[in-house]
Amino acid sequence: MNLLKFIPLVMLTIVLLGNGNVAHHLYQAINSSATVRVVQVYGRNEQGLKDFEYNTLVTTSAETIVDADLYLIAVNDDAIPEVAAGIRQKKGLVAHTSGAVPITSLPNSRRAVFYPLQSFTRDIPVNFTTIPICLEAEHEKDFQVLEVLAKSLSRTVCRMDSQQRLQLHLAAIFANNFSNYLYYLAQEICKEQEINFELLHPLILETANKMRFLPPKKAQTGPARRQDAATMQKHLEMLKNPTHRNIYEVMSHSIQELYEKKL
Amino acid sequence: MNLLKFIPLVMLTIVLLGNGNVAHHLYQAINSSATVRVVQVYGRNEQGLKDFEYNTLVTTSAETIVDADLYLIAVNDDAIPEVAAGIRQKKGLVAHTSGAVPITSLPNSRRAVFYPLQSFTRDIPVNFTTIPICLEAEHEKDFQVLEVLAKSLSRTVCRMDSQQRLQLHLAAIFANNFSNYLYYLAQEICKEQEINFELLHPLILETANKMRFLPPKKAQTGPARRQDAATMQKHLEMLKNPTHRNIYEVMSHSIQELYEKKL
Repeated sequence: MNLLKFIPLVMLTIVLLGNGNVAHHLYQAINSSATVRVVQVYGRNEQGLKDFEYNTLVTTSAETIVDADLYLIAVNDDAIPEVAAGIRQKKGLVAHTSGAVPITSLPNSRRAVFYPLQSFTRDIPVNFTTIPICLEAEHEKDFQVLEVLAKSLSRTVCRMDSQQRLQLHLAAIFANNFSNYLYYLAQEICKEQEINFELLHPLILETANKMRFLPPKKAQTGPARRQDAATMQKHLEMLKNPTHRNIYEVMSHSIQELYEKKL
Repeated sequence: MNLLKFIPLVMLTIVLLGNGNVAHHLYQAINSSATVRVVQVYGRNEQGLKDFEYNTLVTTSAETIVDADLYLIAVNDDAIPEVAAGIRQKKGLVAHTSGAVPITSLPNSRRAVFYPLQSFTRDIPVNFTTIPICLEAEHEKDFQVLEVLAKSLSRTVCRMDSQQRLQLHLAAIFANNFSNYLYYLAQEICKEQEINFELLHPLILETANKMRFLPPKKAQTGPARRQDAATMQKHLEMLKNPTHRNIYEVMSHSIQELYEKKL
């Protein structure tokens, strides 16, 4: 019996640069896969590396970064060029993980982008298998390296250029940042009458879920869609907070416009 | 052996007035419960009653409405007073199902409100057990009638007055109508670069799901929260559609204000 064939083959070694939310979630997902492995984590200060040092080499010095197949940069957008410059002499592929930064901002000769489309929050676990990963590389061989990692983590892997990725990131601002802000406003409106915000949870979950089965344009309901001016007027009178009133007016007006055109 | 104790006891007979989305979903949920029963459905035209007539008495004439414990009015807000007037002589309890209409708009002597907080879409099934039902009645005995029905359908039943219900309904506009509209905008932005909107589905679902574990104010991310003027400027330049640009500006500005105050 040949035991060797039961030993998983690590196909890709990775140095992770960064220790924020994205780095933490990537680290956990990568180390849950048998075919890829983080061999070192780089961070600017020792405190931020504490969570990693039990299982992986860590370093705060760019000079001591080891050789690897892939250098994955998971730092704030502003810091990407500087961190990438610190590993300019490395032969491995260098990829950042940002939606908004073009591939050309990397000064490295072999450069790429590995963008997981999700909003990561510390301590809230994510299921990486459902997160779309958007890849970009300048050479086919480099793309294949990214693909090994992406496919080991997620069921949805796609290729897009920097322009498309930037546009997707912008769409995500509307779908994620702005809708989260609407949840906050709904919570504030509930508070005024001492209503438990949890009553709205099933509606919020159902609204998000429905978009998988029905295009949002068809799913739209409410006074603005049915051009119900009397109800909208009543709502505006109820909204004492000028910010709430402004959002209500702008959103309702845009919805009215969208459905007016169809008359 | 006494077989009688195995026969479920119908505790409440109901006449359902209306044949739209809400009426359909209520009808199905009520008839799935052994303790409550729709004995008749009233609608203005025969065509709309087709789906009901196989299992229940139907009528288009208010004069032939039978006696029941509860008359449940599930019609458009505007039509509620007129439909309620048609059953003014009935002894049973009369309840409408609207979030925005006060209890006093019912001309009946025994009046109430039975408001299921959900956005119903024809042909998309709902799990009624998770839908909060908000009740209002003027007499304790009438409230108990409503409670029998509500508890037979849902795990979340609460009491609130017309003022609170109106406020909850307004909060739901933000949480449901407006966030659905943002999904539509995100889809439009994707279309411009031929990006598959399905890539955003996991993010949208995660954003909605996260609000169950983290207050929206804490979960907020994005350029507006971190006062990242350069990224916001870049986004505004990318948005060619004036409506998209306007929503981006108004939402971002409000988010910036919220977090500025905390500095």
